[in-house]
Amino acid sequence: MQTDFTSELKPAGPGGSVLIEQERARSSIPVDALSEFILGKQWLQMQRSLLPLLMGQKLLSKRTQMNLSRPDRYLLGLARAKLLRRMADQYHWSDEEYEMAKYLVDDVSPYTLHTTMFRQTLREQASDEQQQYWLPKHGRWEVIGAYAQTEMGHGSNVRGIETEARWDPATKSFNLHSPTLTAIRDKVTHQPLDGIVVGDIGPKYGYAPMDNAFMLFKHHRIPHDAMLNRYAKLDPETGVYTKPDAPNVVYGSLTEARSRIVNHARLVLARAVTVAVRYTTIRRQFKDKDDHSEAPETSVIDYSTVQIRILPLLATVFALHFTGQVMKETFLSNRKRIAQNDFSGMAELHSLSSGLKSLCTDLAANGIETCRRAMGGHGYGGYSGLVQLNADYLSKPTVEGDNWMITQQVARYLMKVAKRITEKQGTKQETRAEKLLEKYQLPHNGTGFNILEDHSALADAFEHRVAQMTFQVYAERVKQGRSENEMLIKMHQLSHAYSYSILVRNFHDQITNLQNFGQETINVLWDLYRLFALFTMQNNALEFIQTETVSLDQLSAVRDRIFELMRRIRPHAVRLVDVWALPDYLLDSSLGRYDGRVYEDMFHRAHDLNPLNSITVNPDYKNPELVLGSGDGNAILAKL
Amino acid sequence: MQTDFTSELKPAGPGGSVLIEQERARSSIPVDALSEFILGKQWLQMQRSLLPLLMGQKLLSKRTQMNLSRPDRYLLGLARAKLLRRMADQYHWSDEEYEMAKYLVDDVSPYTLHTTMFRQTLREQASDEQQQYWLPKHGRWEVIGAYAQTEMGHGSNVRGIETEARWDPATKSFNLHSPTLTAIRDKVTHQPLDGIVVGDIGPKYGYAPMDNAFMLFKHHRIPHDAMLNRYAKLDPETGVYTKPDAPNVVYGSLTEARSRIVNHARLVLARAVTVAVRYTTIRRQFKDKDDHSEAPETSVIDYSTVQIRILPLLATVFALHFTGQVMKETFLSNRKRIAQNDFSGMAELHSLSSGLKSLCTDLAANGIETCRRAMGGHGYGGYSGLVQLNADYLSKPTVEGDNWMITQQVARYLMKVAKRITEKQGTKQETRAEKLLEKYQLPHNGTGFNILEDHSALADAFEHRVAQMTFQVYAERVKQGRSENEMLIKMHQLSHAYSYSILVRNFHDQITNLQNFGQETINVLWDLYRLFALFTMQNNALEFIQTETVSLDQLSAVRDRIFELMRRIRPHAVRLVDVWALPDYLLDSSLGRYDGRVYEDMFHRAHDLNPLNSITVNPDYKNPELVLGSGDGNAILAKL
Repeated sequence: MQTDFTSELKPAGPGGSVLIEQERARSSIPVDALSEFILGKQWLQMQRSLLPLLMGQKLLSKRTQMNLSRPDRYLLGLARAKLLRRMADQYHWSDEEYEMAKYLVDDVSPYTLHTTMFRQTLREQASDEQQQYWLPKHGRWEVIGAYAQTEMGHGSNVRGIETEARWDPATKSFNLHSPTLTAIRDKVTHQPLDGIVVGDIGPKYGYAPMDNAFMLFKHHRIPHDAMLNRYAKLDPETGVYTKPDAPNVVYGSLTEARSRIVNHARLVLARAVTVAVRYTTIRRQFKDKDDHSEAPETSVIDYSTVQIRILPLLATVFALHFTGQVMKETFLSNRKRIAQNDFSGMAELHSLSSGLKSLCTDLAANGIETCRRAMGGHGYGGYSGLVQLNADYLSKPTVEGDNWMITQQVARYLMKVAKRITEKQGTKQETRAEKLLEKYQLPHNGTGFNILEDHSALADAFEHRVAQMTFQVYAERVKQGRSENEMLIKMHQLSHAYSYSILVRNFHDQITNLQNFGQETINVLWDLYRLFALFTMQNNALEFIQTETVSLDQLSAVRDRIFELMRRIRPHAVRLVDVWALPDYLLDSSLGRYDGRVYEDMFHRAHDLNPLNSITVNPDYKNPELVLGSGDGNAILAKL
Repeated sequence: MQTDFTSELKPAGPGGSVLIEQERARSSIPVDALSEFILGKQWLQMQRSLLPLLMGQKLLSKRTQMNLSRPDRYLLGLARAKLLRRMADQYHWSDEEYEMAKYLVDDVSPYTLHTTMFRQTLREQASDEQQQYWLPKHGRWEVIGAYAQTEMGHGSNVRGIETEARWDPATKSFNLHSPTLTAIRDKVTHQPLDGIVVGDIGPKYGYAPMDNAFMLFKHHRIPHDAMLNRYAKLDPETGVYTKPDAPNVVYGSLTEARSRIVNHARLVLARAVTVAVRYTTIRRQFKDKDDHSEAPETSVIDYSTVQIRILPLLATVFALHFTGQVMKETFLSNRKRIAQNDFSGMAELHSLSSGLKSLCTDLAANGIETCRRAMGGHGYGGYSGLVQLNADYLSKPTVEGDNWMITQQVARYLMKVAKRITEKQGTKQETRAEKLLEKYQLPHNGTGFNILEDHSALADAFEHRVAQMTFQVYAERVKQGRSENEMLIKMHQLSHAYSYSILVRNFHDQITNLQNFGQETINVLWDLYRLFALFTMQNNALEFIQTETVSLDQLSAVRDRIFELMRRIRPHAVRLVDVWALPDYLLDSSLGRYDGRVYEDMFHRAHDLNPLNSITVNPDYKNPELVLGSGDGNAILAKL
């Protein structure tokens, strides 16, 4: 740390630490109780006990990692992942503790595919015998599983893949071959085997510590038992291939991954909203003409133009939470049914998780950027904590099913249900979609939904919209015979409308069932619910009008309701983000610090921790020397 | 380059180079002629002649720069900026050639503020005597100008700045002092002088080669003549301060900067759209059920869900262009008026440029990300060329006036005009806003605008919307006395509605005046115009309905029109992006290559140019060694 006169300087009073405590004193939301209700006592306890262990490791300090090159950032990720595994051994961490540690360190581990998808695949698709052989090796990290794409020219359409795995009866092995330009490493040297070229695909948006691989085969032979054969089988004697009995089964891990993404989106968005709420509370700018307080300038969050960007996202965090909880329960109950060979819930679960994956990752990815921009110049700075978060999260709308593509599956599912109801065919099922389409088969008279006064009618309106849209899409596609390509955009909108109806309904039902909280807390949750629903309605106004769900007069009144709801939520905003219990170590943000010491921390990072400030440059353009006194004008050229 | 069997592999036929030439053959848009019309013959010639000079310099190669650390990326930016200046000397580049070289190298120069804002400030605010002294030193880069913020706690509200510049009559110098924590370097040692602390503010979103500074003073003295005194003056004998005559004058450079941003936005968005159009043309995925071509899979751009994301942005590029041209002319004619002491055009120009800065940088910043996501997994990869473009451009919605804040100025300006018209007070002015509000003072009967068939009526509808919104906002704020905070969101929407009306009107008028192009080209331009306008209308449907500009029936028909327009524009898409003449060197994108060799280039970069592929890691978590054979487990720790 440099010592100069700046160490004596303090922010102009009152400082951020005073301001944020004043904010907390304005609301009586029981932060700890609500936190426990949402995140669980055990989870919070685990977080508290792991934090000091992690913060004690210099390798896990995040403060200067933004300055590293991509290869160094990758090596840092590798070093951290190894350290975490050694700590897991040393402290005998459970799976949950290990996951929590990774969540707090917030670095993508190069072993991620090994500990998630590879394990899941072994558990689901390997035979008992194969599992006995592979799972212990997996657990001890003696073999490291990877996920590699053989072809750059193929994505979602797995049927189009060109790499061949051809069974050779003579040698009883598969011959893997990449015919076009479209791994498996030696166990001892860790060099790729003959006939395999493998490599990292290069830099991408965020995710620097992860090496994503390509892999190409030239007539490479792998033995028969490398094929996981719990479901799909190939007889080594006859060469006969047997398909899995229930092909859907292998989509189990995909569905689970999509459910997890919904719950993950909630905590990611909570981080962005926490930083934005805390910083815009402390940040002051100009003076609102109607602000008669003694403060020389107004808190930025008091401006409606800042509120309209941040507070609906605060409400969205809660919306995502309640649906995430419901999804988890639905997933577990469906797993039980599958264990009893009842696959009837798969189609609904698949469409639920696909639609929610698409909408929720959109909401979170766009929400982070909205929060960042709402913080102005300092949001653009690296000390906001949102730069890496944004870059890392931007993979989510694309992976595990592209957000535009997977909505087709949701719309097709809804159309099937519409067909069954319209044509009164097939067996009636007790699914959410079926009940909803049954109820609103006939258009409701718009003015019947008292969206402005009645919480329940608001959720009804969302269901009415999606039902009417479904019947419209069904009529256009099936009855009028429009081409699918003509329908795709509408199908995407339909899927989002369905997912919104689920978010709103679950939000509504979960608050209704809440007990043990005082009226002030319940009221604030209802306000968040209404803000989420009305804000969404305003942004999708045309669909609500076209489906005759609400009248133009009702919609015109929504603007003032939103303003009023934001005004009511505003004093509770800081406590409402505190509820998410996001430690400063995780946030890694000067702007979002719990104690409000924004400017001190930002200046400390810029002044003391920034490597650029330890060099003096040579500004003379005729001299190729860059760092003054280095005498070297070619150092940077050598790094290209 | 590594040699292994992959060098023999080719993409599955037909390859990208065949496909993209087939695309070009489908349309007869005269690329070169349209290019010259839009960008100018001289500009294109300059680009052609500079490219080989730049591409011949290894220091200016972009291919591996994504792998550098932030300090190295900064040093690379410094080295490049010095090189470009030396080349400018060597080849006797004009200002325009130097600017073109910077545009093509596409790196933020650490000297940027020196060559732009510092020069502009000297020219506008220094007295003749001061200019004589400083401008030659500036031109030779003997002094380097910088822009430094003294306070982290203040942004747009410059009146709130705490740093003092106190005149000391005894020493006839200013005493600069930073009282709170909220540069000027020695000419010989390049170390900061006593009483000054200066430093880089640290990493941010993109812009790695730029060092943004903070600066703090402790009773630092600067001489009287350091104050630029063309307008503002302080008498060194009496200490009397004289304000500038016309305070608006100093906003000239700000207005010019905002105008430049509009034209810049056009070329930035053109880059993203060029990459997206070319790649999605070559990329094939699944088979559309109605696609009866021989191709095994359908071009991704043929799906309406891809078109709806990319083609309206292609139309937006043209919309930005035509308004950028008009803005440039408006700016120049206003400059002439100012030279004749006529400041009457300032208010309109200020509101025009503020509103357009806000809307156009929003459109470009969001558009880049939309294009990136439309390209799926490879859009997420660094070889898309959109990762750095996106990160670097994200400053634009915040700098030169935050995009939400500056719209207030636009709305206040419109309200003033509305007041003048409503109350029939003041002098009538021939401004765009005044004419527009005069024309639509009374609400028009919505169905009167034949938006679906009549090009001109479509532009009229946008003007009717903004006029009606202006009178509504004026009535609510002035007549009903609503608080300003209640109005801010609506004022933001009003500003965007005004800017959209300008974009649509200029687009319309410029095509109407077009000559020397065949009917096919004119028709495609009209299709782009209608797509831009109708797509915007659909996204702002509620405002068009609430202002009774269009009926619900008309709006419901817009969806099919948009689909039809996209179908018509689609065959011309590749040629329409070729028009922007963006060289591969600038795009730096495997996906957006002119010759369509997407997969070959991507594989070359991943396989041969990726430094991570030259090391083998040690995957054993018990061993802290990271690079196999290095024997070093602490190297990365030392870099933190």
